[in-house]
Amino acid sequence: MSDLLGVAVLGAGHMGADHIRRLAHVVSGARVAAVADPDAGRAKEAVAGLDGVVVHTEVEAALAAPGVDAVLIASPGPAHEEALLAAFARDLPVLCEKPMVPGSAGALRVVEAEARLGRRLAQVGFMRRYDTEYRRLKSLLDSGRLGRPLMLHCTHRNVSSPPGFTSAMLIDSSVSHEIDAARWLLDQELTAVSVFRPRPASGAPEGLLDPQFVLFETAGGALVDVEVFVNCGFGYQVRCEAVCEQGSARIGEEHAMAVTAAGAASREVPDDYLVRFADAYDREVQAWVDATRRGRVTGASVWDGYASSVVAEAGVRALESGGRVTVELAPRPDLYAGVSR
Amino acid sequence: MSDLLGVAVLGAGHMGADHIRRLAHVVSGARVAAVADPDAGRAKEAVAGLDGVVVHTEVEAALAAPGVDAVLIASPGPAHEEALLAAFARDLPVLCEKPMVPGSAGALRVVEAEARLGRRLAQVGFMRRYDTEYRRLKSLLDSGRLGRPLMLHCTHRNVSSPPGFTSAMLIDSSVSHEIDAARWLLDQELTAVSVFRPRPASGAPEGLLDPQFVLFETAGGALVDVEVFVNCGFGYQVRCEAVCEQGSARIGEEHAMAVTAAGAASREVPDDYLVRFADAYDREVQAWVDATRRGRVTGASVWDGYASSVVAEAGVRALESGGRVTVELAPRPDLYAGVSR
Amino acid sequence: MSDLLGVAVLGAGHMGADHIRRLAHVVSGARVAAVADPDAGRAKEAVAGLDGVVVHTEVEAALAAPGVDAVLIASPGPAHEEALLAAFARDLPVLCEKPMVPGSAGALRVVEAEARLGRRLAQVGFMRRYDTEYRRLKSLLDSGRLGRPLMLHCTHRNVSSPPGFTSAMLIDSSVSHEIDAARWLLDQELTAVSVFRPRPASGAPEGLLDPQFVLFETAGGALVDVEVFVNCGFGYQVRCEAVCEQGSARIGEEHAMAVTAAGAASREVPDDYLVRFADAYDREVQAWVDATRRGRVTGASVWDGYASSVVAEAGVRALESGGRVTVELAPRPDLYAGVSR
Amino acid sequence: MSDLLGVAVLGAGHMGADHIRRLAHVVSGARVAAVADPDAGRAKEAVAGLDGVVVHTEVEAALAAPGVDAVLIASPGPAHEEALLAAFARDLPVLCEKPMVPGSAGALRVVEAEARLGRRLAQVGFMRRYDTEYRRLKSLLDSGRLGRPLMLHCTHRNVSSPPGFTSAMLIDSSVSHEIDAARWLLDQELTAVSVFRPRPASGAPEGLLDPQFVLFETAGGALVDVEVFVNCGFGYQVRCEAVCEQGSARIGEEHAMAVTAAGAASREVPDDYLVRFADAYDREVQAWVDATRRGRVTGASVWDGYASSVVAEAGVRALESGGRVTVELAPRPDLYAGVSR
Repeated sequence: MSDLLGVAVLGAGHMGADHIRRLAHVVSGARVAAVADPDAGRAKEAVAGLDGVVVHTEVEAALAAPGVDAVLIASPGPAHEEALLAAFARDLPVLCEKPMVPGSAGALRVVEAEARLGRRLAQVGFMRRYDTEYRRLKSLLDSGRLGRPLMLHCTHRNVSSPPGFTSAMLIDSSVSHEIDAARWLLDQELTAVSVFRPRPASGAPEGLLDPQFVLFETAGGALVDVEVFVNCGFGYQVRCEAVCEQGSARIGEEHAMAVTAAGAASREVPDDYLVRFADAYDREVQAWVDATRRGRVTGASVWDGYASSVVAEAGVRALESGGRVTVELAPRPDLYAGVSR
Repeated sequence: MSDLLGVAVLGAGHMGADHIRRLAHVVSGARVAAVADPDAGRAKEAVAGLDGVVVHTEVEAALAAPGVDAVLIASPGPAHEEALLAAFARDLPVLCEKPMVPGSAGALRVVEAEARLGRRLAQVGFMRRYDTEYRRLKSLLDSGRLGRPLMLHCTHRNVSSPPGFTSAMLIDSSVSHEIDAARWLLDQELTAVSVFRPRPASGAPEGLLDPQFVLFETAGGALVDVEVFVNCGFGYQVRCEAVCEQGSARIGEEHAMAVTAAGAASREVPDDYLVRFADAYDREVQAWVDATRRGRVTGASVWDGYASSVVAEAGVRALESGGRVTVELAPRPDLYAGVSR
Repeated sequence: MSDLLGVAVLGAGHMGADHIRRLAHVVSGARVAAVADPDAGRAKEAVAGLDGVVVHTEVEAALAAPGVDAVLIASPGPAHEEALLAAFARDLPVLCEKPMVPGSAGALRVVEAEARLGRRLAQVGFMRRYDTEYRRLKSLLDSGRLGRPLMLHCTHRNVSSPPGFTSAMLIDSSVSHEIDAARWLLDQELTAVSVFRPRPASGAPEGLLDPQFVLFETAGGALVDVEVFVNCGFGYQVRCEAVCEQGSARIGEEHAMAVTAAGAASREVPDDYLVRFADAYDREVQAWVDATRRGRVTGASVWDGYASSVVAEAGVRALESGGRVTVELAPRPDLYAGVSR
Repeated sequence: MSDLLGVAVLGAGHMGADHIRRLAHVVSGARVAAVADPDAGRAKEAVAGLDGVVVHTEVEAALAAPGVDAVLIASPGPAHEEALLAAFARDLPVLCEKPMVPGSAGALRVVEAEARLGRRLAQVGFMRRYDTEYRRLKSLLDSGRLGRPLMLHCTHRNVSSPPGFTSAMLIDSSVSHEIDAARWLLDQELTAVSVFRPRPASGAPEGLLDPQFVLFETAGGALVDVEVFVNCGFGYQVRCEAVCEQGSARIGEEHAMAVTAAGAASREVPDDYLVRFADAYDREVQAWVDATRRGRVTGASVWDGYASSVVAEAGVRALESGGRVTVELAPRPDLYAGVSR
């Protein structure tokens, strides 16, 4: 365990550059061994100041570079499927940013490919599973102290949406976090989804159905409701209340420093997820590095990535049809027994 | 304004006896002038220690008693319609406990009767409109400071339900409070309702669909969701978060004294509504007495009572059918322009 | 108990007028029977709209007026001693606003006069004893659930001080509330006091030592510290944390509606004590009316008024000397065994 | 910056072993190059599983070991002075756990030694400066948004004290954290101290004066009060409220997950500082490694270590004498202009 884990990072954009910084300067036990990006200039900028990192424009070249022990995929979603299959072919452990693969058909091909290998190589980057508050909630639910979970009430608010954000993306990009979190917290698959559409906020871009109210049903008879509001303007808030048979628990409430001034006692609400979930990204990558160095694979599986994309697709259909849509999953390979932790 | 308002109280059960105590010992400017209850013994017990209160077994006799200036109806729901019409016939101001009349058909007859009078005589006892926190929220929404309301997220939890409580009563008895509160807060009629049914909590009586998750749509394009859970076991909680275009506001959060002991910082959650809404009842009756002595009628109207019962009936049909049910109101008489404050 | 208690109100200034309104329109079971104020015009204005209230310029005339059963003293402090002794002479129950008597010498004369009567007639208006949160804290401490109290940490902040407010008044006017509250909560006399003086806030009037930090020692070995800051500018805050052997409890924290907007989750801080303690005044007067109609005297005694003034005088000497000053009380008459509840 | 910083860790006890784990597995950019502990067995256990770490029993041998670029001192306090001077002699950057040196005389010798070098080599391990909440408070105070700080109200509670903990250690071990935090937050020296002693809690060991209430005065006219209670039994709590001219700010309040069950809404209070300040230790060591690799020295200086020990000694004298004790510092070398950040 004394050697550093050599990581090939695929993609040197916003997310990739951040992971390069994280591997080089934040987490312990890893080093950046290679970087691949079609834009070589961008890749070189991302590794400035790091010794001995060769920059490539092709994925295959980066995976084949000397000293590469594992792969972190942070390229755009459409490139993920090919990259995952290439890593599988070389028997390299992978951490793949979400969405694992755009579209459930491609996601299913990845599941089938890993299932053929007969053992897990890939972890999908659902970072909320590494957030301190979510982990406390998971641990409380797993303890059984509050009895069976009946409902999850979730809030997902962003200050504003990026250009080009569509009504469907409120579900398949934003709510996809709640989809994975709900599956993980409840250890149950989601079986149906309905989407309600209030009259859009005047602060939302023309034509965007924002906010939306999404309601999932689960295999165990629980409900999961999500308010998603991506142009709320007033702060980034991710909250979750689990209502159980003997009590309820909430995370994501405002906390930390309380300032009393000018007739009000107030607590800051962060602007974006990089503030709220900064530690979760660090913990996720550290956990992946630690597990990989021990030859283990933990965290969200490609089955989780596949199931999330099927649910998100059903959600988009429910948004479009205005009705309730059931979720149909392919049979789950034995490799992924249970919803993974 | 110097004379005390003489009130005939109809019904001397749990609620009636409490109102008799309130009129005699808590609010200013009123006195109990007569009481009617079919059970004369119960009525006598309720007025023990009060001077000059004659007890009757018939409503008409109580209304005709000397010194009666106004009527407070606290008898069982099925007796309300006749009592309201009798008060209208004698031109007596009325405060009528909820439900105004069981069933929307009877409620509509009361609306039509008052509309024929051409002026309001009756106030319906939706006491949340007198709760300090609800009033603050109403005042904030009316101020426009947060922009247009988009969603109300409501929680309604009771420790346990009384014997005989049915699945329909979660809606037409419990959620009826949220129905009125939503109409009042938003100043909009509710237009459709869907009911989702998680697998019942193991603490709920056999056969009771508890909890439920109820979702209303409004005339102005807002959504109102309500978690109703009447056998939660862990405390009485009534919460409401209004999500608006420029901010959100929450009421009903735990507050008051925080005790830190044995590894936890905790705040008490009350057992029932009598603790949580004690002041609201006092304020409601005081406001009714004050207005009546000035010859005015304020508060929730019989139209509000009627509209609430139509929405609740639609809710029960949605619960039974599992689908979305639209709300159909009779034309609103001019006397009730706007949702009343 | 059916007749209304006829109250003579002495003083028709700000506080007196408010009590007249309260007796006439808020509390149950009382009526204003007479009012005395040297300024007859002001008195007439205060009783406008009330039937049958005769206005006097002399205290004696008001006490002798027909229908007077009890006295509420709301005149300026220097007039209190004479008014109390006059009420004692006529055997009338009294509610006397704080300060009971300015200066401990006069306060002691009142104690001795009532002690000679051999029974209590007077209650002193320390209204915090009627605040819901203080009562909960008192009840928790009395329960012994948290063990023996070791320290009270108190905060007393006002937006701004009225004209003419002196450095000594931070103690004998503002902190006097904490002096009584501490004696009542702990059921112990205060035995010594030290005053620390930070460099004054720039928002304080020239020459005013504001804020101050006052530290009391008690007969039972507890400490009571008070931050008093009467020109804080940012809100009215009265907080108290009791630290006990097995836990701590806090009251006066911000609560009620939480508004999230513009990057902050905030709760309103009230401007003044009339908002924070509005209910406490109502409850105090209602409790006094109820007890008096039953022929009982409850609440803070004149001994409490005396002890508070002795402690406040010691505090002012500690402020002036910069050192620790011990508190010397006269022997306590048997009539006032224990610190009264 | 590509080579890992080789750190010699002095001391392999509880704290030393934790730092070895942190350098090896948590922070980025460092490796353990040598360890010294008189107990070689303990040292070997602490480095089990780490490659190429030589264990020594002598400080000098560890400092002279190949690959040592910097020193982390985690040995018992009495060994610190010699270790610091040895590191200075070899021109090695140092992170020294608190207390820097027991007793102000030795601390002054360290200051003088570094001042003779003419540049800073050492950082003292006051880890609260790296806690997220403290940093937010510091940043708010430095911004001037709330005006000049007038008072700090601090709470320092431990569940229980270790065996052998003395009354003086409440000040020179526990409150020493608040001494440094106050100097840092206010950017002012502390000039006088008074200690008040409530009757000890029955849960405190026989003879231990616990709790204590400590009051500091500062060069800028502010006050700092500290409740220190090391056998409170109910949880570990470190809180700080800064009261400024235009507002107040609080940190250390209970936060994170709120659980509502059995009639109470509660938030967990941690057992000890390792939970509350876990991240602060990680951040401190990461910041030290990062700065050292860049050839810089940041964080608390040996002057801060010296000043803290002088203030703590004055506090212990105040505890013993019952009176106010002024703080006398040696002249500050130019190297340490200002209270360091």
